[in-house]
Amino acid sequence: MSLQDEIISVCQAARAAARVLAGAATEGKNRCLRDAAARLRAESGRLIAINSGDVQRGREAGLSAALVDRLTLTLARVEAMAKGLEEVAKLPDPVGETMAQWRRPNGLEIGQVRVPLGVVGIIYESRPNVTADAAALCLKAGNAVVLRGGSEALATNAAIAAVLADAVAAAGLPGAAIQLIATADREAVQVLLRQDRYIDVIVPRGGESLIRAITESSRVPVIQHYAGVCHTYVDEYADLAMAERICFNAKVQRPGVCNAMENMLVHAAVANRFLPPMIRRLQEAGVEIRGCERTRQIAPGVAAANEEDWRTEYLDLILAVKVVDSLPEAIAFINTVGSGHSDAIITEHLTHARQFLAQVDSAAVYVNASTRFTDGYEFGFGAEVGISTNRLHARGPMGLRELTTYKYVVHGSGQIRE
Amino acid sequence: MSLQDEIISVCQAARAAARVLAGAATEGKNRCLRDAAARLRAESGRLIAINSGDVQRGREAGLSAALVDRLTLTLARVEAMAKGLEEVAKLPDPVGETMAQWRRPNGLEIGQVRVPLGVVGIIYESRPNVTADAAALCLKAGNAVVLRGGSEALATNAAIAAVLADAVAAAGLPGAAIQLIATADREAVQVLLRQDRYIDVIVPRGGESLIRAITESSRVPVIQHYAGVCHTYVDEYADLAMAERICFNAKVQRPGVCNAMENMLVHAAVANRFLPPMIRRLQEAGVEIRGCERTRQIAPGVAAANEEDWRTEYLDLILAVKVVDSLPEAIAFINTVGSGHSDAIITEHLTHARQFLAQVDSAAVYVNASTRFTDGYEFGFGAEVGISTNRLHARGPMGLRELTTYKYVVHGSGQIRE
Repeated sequence: MSLQDEIISVCQAARAAARVLAGAATEGKNRCLRDAAARLRAESGRLIAINSGDVQRGREAGLSAALVDRLTLTLARVEAMAKGLEEVAKLPDPVGETMAQWRRPNGLEIGQVRVPLGVVGIIYESRPNVTADAAALCLKAGNAVVLRGGSEALATNAAIAAVLADAVAAAGLPGAAIQLIATADREAVQVLLRQDRYIDVIVPRGGESLIRAITESSRVPVIQHYAGVCHTYVDEYADLAMAERICFNAKVQRPGVCNAMENMLVHAAVANRFLPPMIRRLQEAGVEIRGCERTRQIAPGVAAANEEDWRTEYLDLILAVKVVDSLPEAIAFINTVGSGHSDAIITEHLTHARQFLAQVDSAAVYVNASTRFTDGYEFGFGAEVGISTNRLHARGPMGLRELTTYKYVVHGSGQIRE
Repeated sequence: MSLQDEIISVCQAARAAARVLAGAATEGKNRCLRDAAARLRAESGRLIAINSGDVQRGREAGLSAALVDRLTLTLARVEAMAKGLEEVAKLPDPVGETMAQWRRPNGLEIGQVRVPLGVVGIIYESRPNVTADAAALCLKAGNAVVLRGGSEALATNAAIAAVLADAVAAAGLPGAAIQLIATADREAVQVLLRQDRYIDVIVPRGGESLIRAITESSRVPVIQHYAGVCHTYVDEYADLAMAERICFNAKVQRPGVCNAMENMLVHAAVANRFLPPMIRRLQEAGVEIRGCERTRQIAPGVAAANEEDWRTEYLDLILAVKVVDSLPEAIAFINTVGSGHSDAIITEHLTHARQFLAQVDSAAVYVNASTRFTDGYEFGFGAEVGISTNRLHARGPMGLRELTTYKYVVHGSGQIRE
């Protein structure tokens, strides 16, 4: 069978499985997730042995120590995957929810009912836990999933996917609902991205270059999660002690994630009071500061930020700092260099807060809180597929609901169109 | 300026305008729509004169009489466009609606608030009224629009768009919110489809080949409205008089639209009673019947349906008829050959109805009503951008709400992530 035929048949099987899974009862899906967790634990020795082959091949191919670490399965990591499946089993099932219901003057009763999306394609880089995490979320939302992991983790991912598919089949559901493209051939992704007849959406999980490459060649809609260049704006009417706490948290608590602050904007009227202690505290925590001219006058010794700095997602202990003269200047700056992810204002001024919330065009806008809260768990969704920087379908944290669509269910009593 | 630079600058201007329009008050947008209607009426003479140039060039280029008719502006057609704008002014504004709001255990208050999508690209074929209709809906939902009409209507479309843009500017809103790509160069569409930095969604309005071509080369998400191969299934427990009324309506009332019935399925237990009078009535209304073998045994003289017939959107007075042995057979058939648009069951059997509604995977599923109701107006949306056969973002009739997205607005009191 050619690569193309092989991938098409994988996608067709997923599509057929999705139709069955769409009607599966919540309790059946939950039982299957709990059983999959038990199977992962029972098979952990075998999975770790298979993984050690991938790890050895990776070392021989010259993978960096960091990548080898990401690739490596341990007992603790298998246990974490199993726990993750059990957590998903506990979440409410989004399928079947009536989102809206109304009656038309002619007596037709129209309901908008949540249903699974269908077939979700997940393309991801090396961490093998994504295989279990993504499959579990798709399954719970009633979707079939076609997984395509990094080639360095091929044997590991295939083994994990097989354990999950066995659990699905054992639960009396179609095992074909969990599919893995098990070839190292890079052309496979290109073929996958053309299967818009069978795949409803692609969710890439990885760096910006992976997402861009997928978006450029995909005929299937892609939900992107691009960079988070997040801002905190300290207004002239800010509670400066609160501002310091929030900015410190947004930068330092976990710098390597997309909702961490990358640019701090400070109103000129408070810059002299706010910046020196703030910068000192950040520097003591190991943060490198890159400032605009006015920042550097207030805090001598700070390096100069260049144009590129403002648009950079550092994902590191680096912060760009800029003094601005007004709220409108801050808003315009954020809308120009930001990435539409998460941005905050610190202020006690009601009209300023409202203006910022209305005019900053980002997935999440905050007043007096850390941007670090943009997260499916923190928002109360219980799980997270990713954080979408798309505007279509899903924006911001994606939970189980964002893996669904809807259908209109119409009850009549003989109505015809006049 | 190169074609590419020209189109990029059009898209950038639309993006900048969208930011301003997103904050426009409802009353300002409504006043602008009413003013645009008045301007179209006042300028109708000039518009018709400009249109006559397009019509003459079309005739010289050998356009068919039907296409020349679609292209031609008359006083009545200008009046219809103006009335359309006034109707859109009367619709409720979707922007600013709080879709959900909740409080987290840490006191964060999270609101999900409806906001405009941003910049909408509309690519359409010859009827020039789309210029006004599409622009009005985008404007009302707070979006900027980039229009690309058929080259044969270029001068007409440009004139209509300019009248609308003048009205937007006169209302103190950014006139650049309404943009038209005013070149006959076919490469322009290709350039447009690569502007994912500036355009948030493409809505093609036209035939299937237009939509396929756009989907294949677009880097911007596309909302498709493919064919409607709609079914009515007459169950063994149907009220046959009701079934006859509904099937007749679904086929005959307006056969040239996507929600008209193309395939009629009839349970074997009632086929002998139902089919002869039904087929006679359809034939008397000029409908050509193409039947399966069993249909042809019941109604001699009916032509044979081939495999292609079941998947064809006739958009005409032609109907394919099939006798089936069970509800599951009907459901499987619909899910295989249908297009996921609109499908109906006629039955008095509650469990059959529920099974059909749950298992037929279409945007709209009906019990005891005509599929002809799948329509933004009939659903009560007040307007319609199209009927999406996508599963992502918008499914089924698209009204103003489907031209919006949301943002999360988070109010805190100093919360930081632990």
